Amino acid sequence: MTKNEASAIMSDDNKSEVESAVKSESNQTTKKTKRNQNQKKKPAGNKADNDKGAGNKVNENKAAEMKAVSNKVKIIPLGGLDRIGMNITAFEYEDSIIVVDCGLAFPDEDMLGVDLVIPDVTYLKNNRDKVKGFVITHGHEDHIGALPFILKDINVPVYATKLTIGLIDLKLKEYGMLKTTKRKVVKHGNSVNLGAFRIEFIKTNHSIADASALAIYSPAGIIVHTGDFKIDYTPLFGDSIDLQRFGEIGKKGVLALLCDSTNAGRPGFTPSEEMVARTFENLFTENKNHRMIVATFASNVDRVQQIINTAYKFKRKVILQGRSMVNVIEVASELGYIKIPENTLVDVDQMKNYPDEQLVFITTGSQGEAMAALSRMADSTHKKVTIKPGDTIIFSSTPIPGNEKAVSKVINELSKKGANVIFQDTHVSGHACQEEIKLIYSLLRPKYAVPVHGEFRHRMAQAELVKAIGIPQENIFIIKSGNVLELSEEKGKVTENVQAKDIFVDGLGIGDVGSTVIRDRQYLSENGIIIVALTMMKSTNQVLAGPEIITRGFVYVKESEELIVEAERIVNAALDKCANKNVTDWNKIRNTIRDDLNDYLWKKLKRSPLILPIILEA
Amino acid sequence: MTKNEASAIMSDDNKSEVESAVKSESNQTTKKTKRNQNQKKKPAGNKADNDKGAGNKVNENKAAEMKAVSNKVKIIPLGGLDRIGMNITAFEYEDSIIVVDCGLAFPDEDMLGVDLVIPDVTYLKNNRDKVKGFVITHGHEDHIGALPFILKDINVPVYATKLTIGLIDLKLKEYGMLKTTKRKVVKHGNSVNLGAFRIEFIKTNHSIADASALAIYSPAGIIVHTGDFKIDYTPLFGDSIDLQRFGEIGKKGVLALLCDSTNAGRPGFTPSEEMVARTFENLFTENKNHRMIVATFASNVDRVQQIINTAYKFKRKVILQGRSMVNVIEVASELGYIKIPENTLVDVDQMKNYPDEQLVFITTGSQGEAMAALSRMADSTHKKVTIKPGDTIIFSSTPIPGNEKAVSKVINELSKKGANVIFQDTHVSGHACQEEIKLIYSLLRPKYAVPVHGEFRHRMAQAELVKAIGIPQENIFIIKSGNVLELSEEKGKVTENVQAKDIFVDGLGIGDVGSTVIRDRQYLSENGIIIVALTMMKSTNQVLAGPEIITRGFVYVKESEELIVEAERIVNAALDKCANKNVTDWNKIRNTIRDDLNDYLWKKLKRSPLILPIILEA
Repeated sequence: MTKNEASAIMSDDNKSEVESAVKSESNQTTKKTKRNQNQKKKPAGNKADNDKGAGNKVNENKAAEMKAVSNKVKIIPLGGLDRIGMNITAFEYEDSIIVVDCGLAFPDEDMLGVDLVIPDVTYLKNNRDKVKGFVITHGHEDHIGALPFILKDINVPVYATKLTIGLIDLKLKEYGMLKTTKRKVVKHGNSVNLGAFRIEFIKTNHSIADASALAIYSPAGIIVHTGDFKIDYTPLFGDSIDLQRFGEIGKKGVLALLCDSTNAGRPGFTPSEEMVARTFENLFTENKNHRMIVATFASNVDRVQQIINTAYKFKRKVILQGRSMVNVIEVASELGYIKIPENTLVDVDQMKNYPDEQLVFITTGSQGEAMAALSRMADSTHKKVTIKPGDTIIFSSTPIPGNEKAVSKVINELSKKGANVIFQDTHVSGHACQEEIKLIYSLLRPKYAVPVHGEFRHRMAQAELVKAIGIPQENIFIIKSGNVLELSEEKGKVTENVQAKDIFVDGLGIGDVGSTVIRDRQYLSENGIIIVALTMMKSTNQVLAGPEIITRGFVYVKESEELIVEAERIVNAALDKCANKNVTDWNKIRNTIRDDLNDYLWKKLKRSPLILPIILEA
Repeated sequence: MTKNEASAIMSDDNKSEVESAVKSESNQTTKKTKRNQNQKKKPAGNKADNDKGAGNKVNENKAAEMKAVSNKVKIIPLGGLDRIGMNITAFEYEDSIIVVDCGLAFPDEDMLGVDLVIPDVTYLKNNRDKVKGFVITHGHEDHIGALPFILKDINVPVYATKLTIGLIDLKLKEYGMLKTTKRKVVKHGNSVNLGAFRIEFIKTNHSIADASALAIYSPAGIIVHTGDFKIDYTPLFGDSIDLQRFGEIGKKGVLALLCDSTNAGRPGFTPSEEMVARTFENLFTENKNHRMIVATFASNVDRVQQIINTAYKFKRKVILQGRSMVNVIEVASELGYIKIPENTLVDVDQMKNYPDEQLVFITTGSQGEAMAALSRMADSTHKKVTIKPGDTIIFSSTPIPGNEKAVSKVINELSKKGANVIFQDTHVSGHACQEEIKLIYSLLRPKYAVPVHGEFRHRMAQAELVKAIGIPQENIFIIKSGNVLELSEEKGKVTENVQAKDIFVDGLGIGDVGSTVIRDRQYLSENGIIIVALTMMKSTNQVLAGPEIITRGFVYVKESEELIVEAERIVNAALDKCANKNVTDWNKIRNTIRDDLNDYLWKKLKRSPLILPIILEA
């Protein structure tokens, strides 16, 4: 789709949706006054707002004439609760559904062999005609990663800010879906109209540029979704979060706030990215005689900018390492989200032209990921970069829970090679802490609070904060994926549940690995397998071949010959027993073999491998 | 063995070993002066020491008359380096070997199905006659846990302080080895003579009572092993670490120091256990209307004492939960290491007789261990305790790296049940930080530094500290398990390597699961298995039965019928291909089936299950 095509689509959308957006505004104005009275917190008499972004000036008189509309809006999270990652939430008003974010999750350690986890969008498929589009808050995998999978079934336009669309395009290109997917860049402060909804993009700060909160205007009221955010008064790139607009929207009256809970358990404010800059300057000064390698997230464009700035100041050349690092920085650079001074970036093959102290690598692998560039340097499988004594390696990150041991392993390997590994003070979180969350709530003063983005305990921590600043317990919703939360000025209630589960991606298979397969993998991984194969005549039950015993993942066979011989004896005894008792049912024969062998192994070794008797029919 | 028998053995030992201990002292006195001159740090002219513990008063004149002795002592770690856990180190002087600690490690996450990891003691088995005994620093699993396995092969006496022996007895009892194992309680300040060695037990502080450092006197010099330690000036139970004795021994001249590195990367001092007491008082005050549940390590006897003290003060009854909690506290209580006020401890069945606000549970499970009491409460499988809204649950611990996600899961489950989970300020480390490590080095001023107890990076951090306080680089040894480090006054050098690997315990099997089996388990866990079974005539290669295809952990078969049908077609085609080419070698037939099926599945699904063709001979 070209830019013109995209605009064309948008104009059409705009035309048809103007009316509902207008409805939305008028409805809110009415409702709001009522809520303000209920809450006894806000002054009454807010004047109608001029939405500069949408350009839909509200005409109160006209609105008042319009027919009655439903006062209920539904919030349906299809993922993103009870775990970090896989964020996707549907908002439904009558015949309109919009979907905020479409992320993936990386598998938990017990999801053996699974590559990715994507959301189950059966509900969207069943309501395909209602779905008007995806609205994306920012370009991280847990917010955009499932798009290529989901768009195959639900091909609706995708709306996001420039860098976010750039990163989505990178992904769509990889899956060959650029031509078939409609994307539309939206600027902060502007809105899109989708069915009954109007969605305004509001500037926030996060660990990636161009992050947005969304104000979702519906005829039943305004819902604000913060996305992942923090408040950074001194961001490295662009403006600070648009707190004024949060205040303005708050004054209009907000029905519900869906707010990031990741750091809701942490007191205070998350420090500014600026803090990291000073630490980098110190580290570059202290290590001026060493080659430097800095590991961070590819998507943390601002962090990469900082490292490049410092490198330039200290007259070092920068080499990017890791596929995602190269790709993301290329996109960010093309779109103007990162400024790289001329002659600063050099290719890894030019490394030999510069002395060590004039080089800095920026690399993936800060989480100890097995195949990332830094991990390959650590275990000596990197083709171009060899770690040597004197190298200074900086982890500009903190391990995500679950990655601690992997990170630790990489650090040990790098240390063994003589590198000096620095693991502190060069990272700040991208998520709001308690004071920031309280500030956002105080600007918006929503009727209902729906903590999102976080495990149960994080969302509970936000619920505690929210209670403390005056939102009554019954207006705070700690919901689950699949819950349909129906909200109106009168009440909020989970009215039903829709299907919402994890879909596993393994190789090219989507959903063909489920809980049964995973259970088998877990069992195999802890106990191994014993296969007992034999051939029988169907008519006589005479054994024509075997039994043969083959094991994998059970014992080291060469040193356990006795055990295998004894196992064969037990299988033969089981067959004899069946023959003597005239057992002809092959299922019973298989069960006898399995039970007898299992008994023997448990007594002998206190182990239970998966025993698989196979009887072939001759 | 009765106490009298043990004493008898010791008296004999004492008699025969007095001479070598005396040698040791005189030798050290000579060497020491020389070292002091080299290091130019210590005043010369130390007077001979009166070792109150051993009672072996040194007679310098007599010593001077004795024949020349070897000046070399070997330090041979058989575990405990490059990972936390499985501590075991042999010290060898001519015909004498003593072994300090005999711990186990819990398996890494990639050691699938492994229950425990124990050290490979082939070197000790090969030198069985030399081995005089095990000397144990304290009663934690990573220092005593492998004893029941290793004592089966090397049945020598075990020496340790009272609580440590009590915990070892608990373990030996479980394995039915109490009668066959000689144990001897040693008091702090006393020594045991074992072959050429005399070993003095020195009081330290740690997260378990009765922890010891060891001064190992050999004819080649004194080696000090700190064990796990911290410096606690205000310990809850018993005395502070015997810093005076460290000073005294330092004055004699120390050849080498093996020092705990766990916290060598952390600046400052580890806080005193006393700090935790105040936090508990506050928490008990704040939660006076709630039932309380505190999770900690069973072996952290002092912590349990604190909780009991606070409970008593706040008039609460204490219920212990978890098998190891009950066992360890019983032993500690019998031996006088924990004081439980009368009528404070009640059985879980008496719970119903007390209101919630008069109860506190002390439970295992602070690391999220799947089968521990707290985890069972969290997932509603605990038989007696049901978590309810209002319960206050305190984690008095920090997660060991690798356990973060499991702990997180338990917290989420408890929160969902309405419990208030508190996760801060009720734990202090049991290991020395940088200032403590520097203090111990400054008291002992060893010639050689051998950082122990820690991953490579922790030991490197200690090496940096040690360099900073004046020990030259060439006298600091970052060694590996299996290294034989030979030390004399003149030089230190790794002279050879002995076998030292991980032995896996799986059920009752010890060592029958090795790297091949683990690799198979890993492969199975990620990809599953496809078995292709058929029967052939040996003479004609005619297929009599099958091929039958059975999968486990690959795909959900009911939804993948087409795939399985296609796989059968490919196997049949492979068989036809072999028949047409007159391939008669069954290995080649098996390989053809495997390769063709693998190609198909990779193209179709980008997956590689383990393919196992089985051909039975009719």
